[in-house]
Amino acid sequence: MQTPTVPLTIAGKTFRSRLFLGTARYPNQQVMLDALEASGAEVVTVAMRRVSLDGQAENLFDLLRGRYHILPNTAGCYTARDAVLTAQLAREALGTNWIKLEVIGDDETLFPDVEQLLQAAQELVDDGFVVLPYCNDDPVTCKKLEAIGCAAVMPLGAPIGSGMGIRNPYNIQIIREQCQVPVIVDAGVGTASDAAIAMELGCDGVLLNSAVAQARDPVKMARAMRLAIEAGRLAYEAGRMPRRLYASASSPLEGRIQL
Amino acid sequence: MQTPTVPLTIAGKTFRSRLFLGTARYPNQQVMLDALEASGAEVVTVAMRRVSLDGQAENLFDLLRGRYHILPNTAGCYTARDAVLTAQLAREALGTNWIKLEVIGDDETLFPDVEQLLQAAQELVDDGFVVLPYCNDDPVTCKKLEAIGCAAVMPLGAPIGSGMGIRNPYNIQIIREQCQVPVIVDAGVGTASDAAIAMELGCDGVLLNSAVAQARDPVKMARAMRLAIEAGRLAYEAGRMPRRLYASASSPLEGRIQL
Amino acid sequence: MQTPTVPLTIAGKTFRSRLFLGTARYPNQQVMLDALEASGAEVVTVAMRRVSLDGQAENLFDLLRGRYHILPNTAGCYTARDAVLTAQLAREALGTNWIKLEVIGDDETLFPDVEQLLQAAQELVDDGFVVLPYCNDDPVTCKKLEAIGCAAVMPLGAPIGSGMGIRNPYNIQIIREQCQVPVIVDAGVGTASDAAIAMELGCDGVLLNSAVAQARDPVKMARAMRLAIEAGRLAYEAGRMPRRLYASASSPLEGRIQL
Amino acid sequence: MQTPTVPLTIAGKTFRSRLFLGTARYPNQQVMLDALEASGAEVVTVAMRRVSLDGQAENLFDLLRGRYHILPNTAGCYTARDAVLTAQLAREALGTNWIKLEVIGDDETLFPDVEQLLQAAQELVDDGFVVLPYCNDDPVTCKKLEAIGCAAVMPLGAPIGSGMGIRNPYNIQIIREQCQVPVIVDAGVGTASDAAIAMELGCDGVLLNSAVAQARDPVKMARAMRLAIEAGRLAYEAGRMPRRLYASASSPLEGRIQL
Repeated sequence: MQTPTVPLTIAGKTFRSRLFLGTARYPNQQVMLDALEASGAEVVTVAMRRVSLDGQAENLFDLLRGRYHILPNTAGCYTARDAVLTAQLAREALGTNWIKLEVIGDDETLFPDVEQLLQAAQELVDDGFVVLPYCNDDPVTCKKLEAIGCAAVMPLGAPIGSGMGIRNPYNIQIIREQCQVPVIVDAGVGTASDAAIAMELGCDGVLLNSAVAQARDPVKMARAMRLAIEAGRLAYEAGRMPRRLYASASSPLEGRIQL
Repeated sequence: MQTPTVPLTIAGKTFRSRLFLGTARYPNQQVMLDALEASGAEVVTVAMRRVSLDGQAENLFDLLRGRYHILPNTAGCYTARDAVLTAQLAREALGTNWIKLEVIGDDETLFPDVEQLLQAAQELVDDGFVVLPYCNDDPVTCKKLEAIGCAAVMPLGAPIGSGMGIRNPYNIQIIREQCQVPVIVDAGVGTASDAAIAMELGCDGVLLNSAVAQARDPVKMARAMRLAIEAGRLAYEAGRMPRRLYASASSPLEGRIQL
Repeated sequence: MQTPTVPLTIAGKTFRSRLFLGTARYPNQQVMLDALEASGAEVVTVAMRRVSLDGQAENLFDLLRGRYHILPNTAGCYTARDAVLTAQLAREALGTNWIKLEVIGDDETLFPDVEQLLQAAQELVDDGFVVLPYCNDDPVTCKKLEAIGCAAVMPLGAPIGSGMGIRNPYNIQIIREQCQVPVIVDAGVGTASDAAIAMELGCDGVLLNSAVAQARDPVKMARAMRLAIEAGRLAYEAGRMPRRLYASASSPLEGRIQL
Repeated sequence: MQTPTVPLTIAGKTFRSRLFLGTARYPNQQVMLDALEASGAEVVTVAMRRVSLDGQAENLFDLLRGRYHILPNTAGCYTARDAVLTAQLAREALGTNWIKLEVIGDDETLFPDVEQLLQAAQELVDDGFVVLPYCNDDPVTCKKLEAIGCAAVMPLGAPIGSGMGIRNPYNIQIIREQCQVPVIVDAGVGTASDAAIAMELGCDGVLLNSAVAQARDPVKMARAMRLAIEAGRLAYEAGRMPRRLYASASSPLEGRIQL
């Protein structure tokens, strides 16, 4: 049976899958490849730093090239300058002007540095990149990133690697209302329902890594995420029933609830 | 690609789908039939009272028979006696000894009457029925229903028709720990992620109706539910990553969080 | 400064404090006495079983008599018969016809047994007791207890000794709407804000024990609870501001939120 | 009875009350004065813009001076330059170098502009101000503000005027862990329990306005807030009991919960 959901378009490129998957922290490479396949993801993100450092760049890229749209990222960069240089390196090495922009502000929590992020985003957009920035769930920062010319905004649902889910759905909802570019929740998803919730909020996609890589069975979780994202998107498009305190309540739930 | 999840067995009968769907409150009969098909449900539940009252019994049963496992229910019954009689009527009319047992204690909120429910469950089990009781999210009641011989327990996630989701996942988790029979969340699911959460808690299935029937696009929501339940089940089987306050936290989240 | 909140009346007796405190599990007796005083509680509850078993009945009652309204409870009773006998024993020993009725259905989780509870409540009301029953957060059970003639209903916020807070505020809200007798949240409160939330929901009082007795500093926590309950009650009476997604949102929050 | 909680010290000045109250949006001036008194607040914040615009500066300051520590704020400023000028104007007019720094990034949601905020904070600290900045619940921004030399950080609990409570307690907890200066939750509190929760998280104070000014009875709500903040602080100092799924659970709650 067909699932006629609306496809996602970023910077003129159209994707059927709304799941973006990372390539770090899998038990081994074969599990990673199997999980990528089970996920149905078209876009996979790879840390340039990691690739360079362990000297397995060619190997990993050879494996993924052709089968996936590779989105290099600047994980591990702590300044705009580092991030810009890393993006330029990635463009040269991989022949893509797409970049997932991360500028980390704290090496413990991995929250972004908003000032450095905005500066790097500006430089990279000016240099012709398609910039997808990992950012706080801050509507003002997201609007600035959009104004700079980023192709999407990628607010975190919770800290990277926390598996805490969407901690503040209200902020995500405000971002969704205020931005015209695609909104992709990046970081925080821990299990399938988290991904579904992101999509039900109207987000355009979800980028995740640890939730799959660190599940007991990554391949099975990859398939769970694929279905959850499709389910959440369908539910969003279908238009959910209203909430009520109970069915025969004369007014909608929300007018009467105090919690 | 295959999805090798464990099948669900109730009273010796095995189902591939873990979604049980109701047949009330759809915009019209064709939408209902399309939604049932899109949902992948094998078991559909029909209110005997409603069928009898509107005189469309033959019509509806003719439509569903052969394509679905029909599970008659005792919706609208307020006493054990009424519920038992309705179940017996259903058995005669439909040739099935399966019954979804509802004994309502309050016509406003549609919460069950625990005393009448337990009495009716005992009588029906004694009379050879396969009893699937709609009940509170109360572990003691669920254990009693299991001891009586019910084939499953079906605690509510929230009031019937409320769309509020799983209001108290802790109780559902305790029920899951303490019962050996299948646990099927019945009532309260409002959107896809609610159904995924029920499955991630380890429940064996979800029974829902309004979330599909009252969505703006019931057929699309039916497919969302199908995928969400499969996603939630896969995530449960896959074993989710642990939660942490942030990734580099040395201890798991829970030991440090005060909320 | 005066705090002109409405006083609480149960069975014709009026209390200024809306906090009911238990006497179990304190580090020692002096801490218990200090905590009781710091809490401002007028009603303290004592387990008849515990008192009898450890032979310290006279001691404890001598300590509390005159200073507090002693509310004996039937903790540790698993049948209506046991609970009724224990209540009668308490009446004889303590000269009070007030009883906090507990009939436990599961010795692991300490959830009540609804059937036995209702039976015991009926017998005790018939026998002239002022019955305050510990029960599930089930509106139908609460309405039955009220119909039987109980002087109040005492739904649990979470399992006894769990410290989980009000797990399902929606059920408490429905109970508050449907019952005329005082609603006292019993069990589950873990910290001050939990007690405030119970009062903001419109409850008439809170009964707690472990949250004070098992705090690192029980006396300080006792005072925290005293203030939290007064704060929550005042907030309820003051009438809180409406919630909005943000201040300038043209419609109230609830019409726009999907979570 | 005494309440021996630890006092709050900011920039060398010690306060007994941990509640900071705003002066906007009250039904009338008398209600404002009565609410301030009932709240027990020592610090009240006044918008310089509003004061200047409506020409009632002298009146309002004459009313408050001597009775309260007046904390002028830069509400309504959208750039670092505007905020700095407004702070300087306040210093001259009121003879205080304390400033609550707000730099708004969006006039609909009133979220701060992080870049402008950091710039203004730096300029004002350099100019000798005691700066208390309203900011996002972003740990990196808070650490930067601390590094600049701000006397406290004031992360929002939810959007200004929303009454939504602490939407992301996890971020507040991380900020509390990572900052040495006082952490004061500013914005979002809607009712008494929200304020108590902020304090239970270990925050040093709460600044609020609409929750009191827009309650049905502002004076009563002011007293509720006073008690709630004291309750929350006491509970924090007392050390709450651990949470468990149920009391006899052998392991703490969190290791077993899936939600």
